[in-house]
Amino acid sequence: MTMWPDPSSNSAQIYQRALGVLPGGISRLQTWNEPFPFYAKSGSGVHVTDEDGTVRVDFVNNFASLIHGHAHPVIVEAVCEAVKNGTCFALPTRVEVELAEILCERFATFEKVRYCNTGTEAVMLALKAARAYTDRPKIAKFEGAYHGMYDFAEVSLDSSPANWGNDPRSVPYARGTPRGVLEDVVVLPFNETEASERIIREHADQLAGILIDLCPSYMGFAPMSPQYVDMLHRVTKEIGAVLIADEVISIRLGYGGGQGRFGLEPDLTVAAKLIGGGFPVACVAGREKVMSVFDHSKGKPLSPSSGTFTANPIGLTAGVSAMRLLTQENFDRLEVLGERAREGIARTFDNSGFPGQVTGIGSMFQIHMTQRDICNHRSAYQSSEEAGAIRLLQRRMLERGFIISNRGHGFLSTPMNEDHVDALADATSDALREMVQ
Amino acid sequence: MTMWPDPSSNSAQIYQRALGVLPGGISRLQTWNEPFPFYAKSGSGVHVTDEDGTVRVDFVNNFASLIHGHAHPVIVEAVCEAVKNGTCFALPTRVEVELAEILCERFATFEKVRYCNTGTEAVMLALKAARAYTDRPKIAKFEGAYHGMYDFAEVSLDSSPANWGNDPRSVPYARGTPRGVLEDVVVLPFNETEASERIIREHADQLAGILIDLCPSYMGFAPMSPQYVDMLHRVTKEIGAVLIADEVISIRLGYGGGQGRFGLEPDLTVAAKLIGGGFPVACVAGREKVMSVFDHSKGKPLSPSSGTFTANPIGLTAGVSAMRLLTQENFDRLEVLGERAREGIARTFDNSGFPGQVTGIGSMFQIHMTQRDICNHRSAYQSSEEAGAIRLLQRRMLERGFIISNRGHGFLSTPMNEDHVDALADATSDALREMVQ
Repeated sequence: MTMWPDPSSNSAQIYQRALGVLPGGISRLQTWNEPFPFYAKSGSGVHVTDEDGTVRVDFVNNFASLIHGHAHPVIVEAVCEAVKNGTCFALPTRVEVELAEILCERFATFEKVRYCNTGTEAVMLALKAARAYTDRPKIAKFEGAYHGMYDFAEVSLDSSPANWGNDPRSVPYARGTPRGVLEDVVVLPFNETEASERIIREHADQLAGILIDLCPSYMGFAPMSPQYVDMLHRVTKEIGAVLIADEVISIRLGYGGGQGRFGLEPDLTVAAKLIGGGFPVACVAGREKVMSVFDHSKGKPLSPSSGTFTANPIGLTAGVSAMRLLTQENFDRLEVLGERAREGIARTFDNSGFPGQVTGIGSMFQIHMTQRDICNHRSAYQSSEEAGAIRLLQRRMLERGFIISNRGHGFLSTPMNEDHVDALADATSDALREMVQ
Repeated sequence: MTMWPDPSSNSAQIYQRALGVLPGGISRLQTWNEPFPFYAKSGSGVHVTDEDGTVRVDFVNNFASLIHGHAHPVIVEAVCEAVKNGTCFALPTRVEVELAEILCERFATFEKVRYCNTGTEAVMLALKAARAYTDRPKIAKFEGAYHGMYDFAEVSLDSSPANWGNDPRSVPYARGTPRGVLEDVVVLPFNETEASERIIREHADQLAGILIDLCPSYMGFAPMSPQYVDMLHRVTKEIGAVLIADEVISIRLGYGGGQGRFGLEPDLTVAAKLIGGGFPVACVAGREKVMSVFDHSKGKPLSPSSGTFTANPIGLTAGVSAMRLLTQENFDRLEVLGERAREGIARTFDNSGFPGQVTGIGSMFQIHMTQRDICNHRSAYQSSEEAGAIRLLQRRMLERGFIISNRGHGFLSTPMNEDHVDALADATSDALREMVQ
């Protein structure tokens, strides 16, 4: 039997065709593997089977989207029933109300919900809403924080020692980024309360909103300090800027999301990933006064938004099913499992002698091939040696039947139990042992 | 039996709940109806049934997305089979190659395909690609042309006599649009070849790309003239700007899309709507040399792109099914039916004495409550009286069991036949007669 990355494997043959029609043979940067990707054929619960029949335990769950793992039977049944009734209409459907009611019931700061399709769209809508509400042009965000593909949200995503400056500079992520985009983005150092407040105040009368992540995934999920949360509340209120929480990932931190856990009270929240139950569903939600920029009922909205597939009933149906399955008990279990996974991996590093660590919170972890304290973009910034080491670890884990991301991220799912996380720790131990040899 | 808009109808009750959780009670501007929307319960073929059991013939088809109508059995079966195998992965799947192969086979200018989820995302990716390829900041687009929600693409979408100027000015669509966005968008007058060439040349060395629609939906699908097509080919080549065709809607004009029909050879094309078979699937596709900005294989791409739900197998599976069903015979039939629909509605205007007209091409039409020649944004710009009249016509059509858009748009589907389009013309005739009384 051939397996990835065997040149005669099914994955190799699909990739050869892919090279003919996709740039570099792929569709998404995060799914690349050397020397070519392996292709998913099916998923069920914690497992993914690839096109060559290899079964692995999936600790990525489409980058935190699949909190119930793959093909949960309740979601599959609800979706198939809905698909038979049509997948989209030039009309609203009942389920757009049902999902919004569930979200407003769970999140203390959600008074109104506006849907779109992806995290990228939702971040764009939230930033446009903040501009419309304040009639100001600038957005502040953290150096190194990932918020999707909207240019303004991408600024300084991968700034490096060569260009990041002392106070964080506004650094383009893509070639050809217009100067106007860079000038309208204010970059903040994560968790540096005094410096951030000073920088925010320098732009006070121009600042529409501050886009934050409570525990940025590109910084090992380092948690925002209580002092920083307090500063954000105080300063945004004082200068009249909109506080926007990107909870696309951190929403999985509890029944009331990351904001419930950290005591954050954002004006707007961006949600996506798990709220769609495995389908592209996203939203901006928050305080009625700010959300009123989307309201059509008194004439043209200050920030008009629409979208052909926005609020399509298939994604919303999957989302309603996924949210109903996501009980407080599930969060409690995931919390214990996440802690167990991190403890197991940490022990592994202690025993292996390999210089590394694991960070994370709740059902999320990240493995790092360095022992320095990971607390912001600059400390999380990987040398090419470290980036190579984590990719090698990922490879060794894949060979042992475990999927983690090529940055060492993992996200647990509700079908997982102690055996899965213990096996993950054991596989990490074996993989590190092979790497130090 | 209660029906929309009866205050005791099911739709009324859903809307009352919607007001509590959605801004203005809705999710999408285009689906609003006075005094409140009616809600879709199910669709099958040409029909949509609302929450009160009223059945109507759907001539909107989710704004041109559903070229095979609702819940086509082949698509339903393929999707339900796929859903059982998991809806998304942190891995590629075989179907991303299959759909790209189909697209590259049909469209002469498609050498490589990069997926995303919506037309809005695809326009953003295409504009970012043009900037990355040229390392220039500016984008040109037509006054009044709709290309989704990305700020740069929204400029001058609804400019009015009060602000549009002589040469089209760069007019913000949403409140708070940054000045930098307005400065980086060059606005062109549709089909005015000499004026457009002059304006393009004024920005020649700053222009990354020109975003066009061959027959803009907000201008009654007025077709681009052969001279304008020639000018675009000649000038973009000369100044080194990327020619970008938004075929999100016009792709339904033929087996090779609008570009095949109009002899346009764009560097990049944006496709969405019908290519996803009723699910949110979109792409940027085009010449290999430009598409190489997305290629990761020689280091960080000039324009990195990814996305959690990008290339998810459910949308792509539906897309493959829809594209395979879409034969040359289907296009030939839709062409004849579209012509018959327009002729029928035109006769209706002749007979009713109501001052109006129908425009369109292929399987698309738009009804206008004016007799002036609709040839660009300024001639398509509706007085509030005209906008009111078309909304009233829409209402009278809904009462007669036919769904058209609140701008008078219609898009045919393959399950339609002569009887459906003749009945549409008859209903239009009755509706107009009621309106002139």
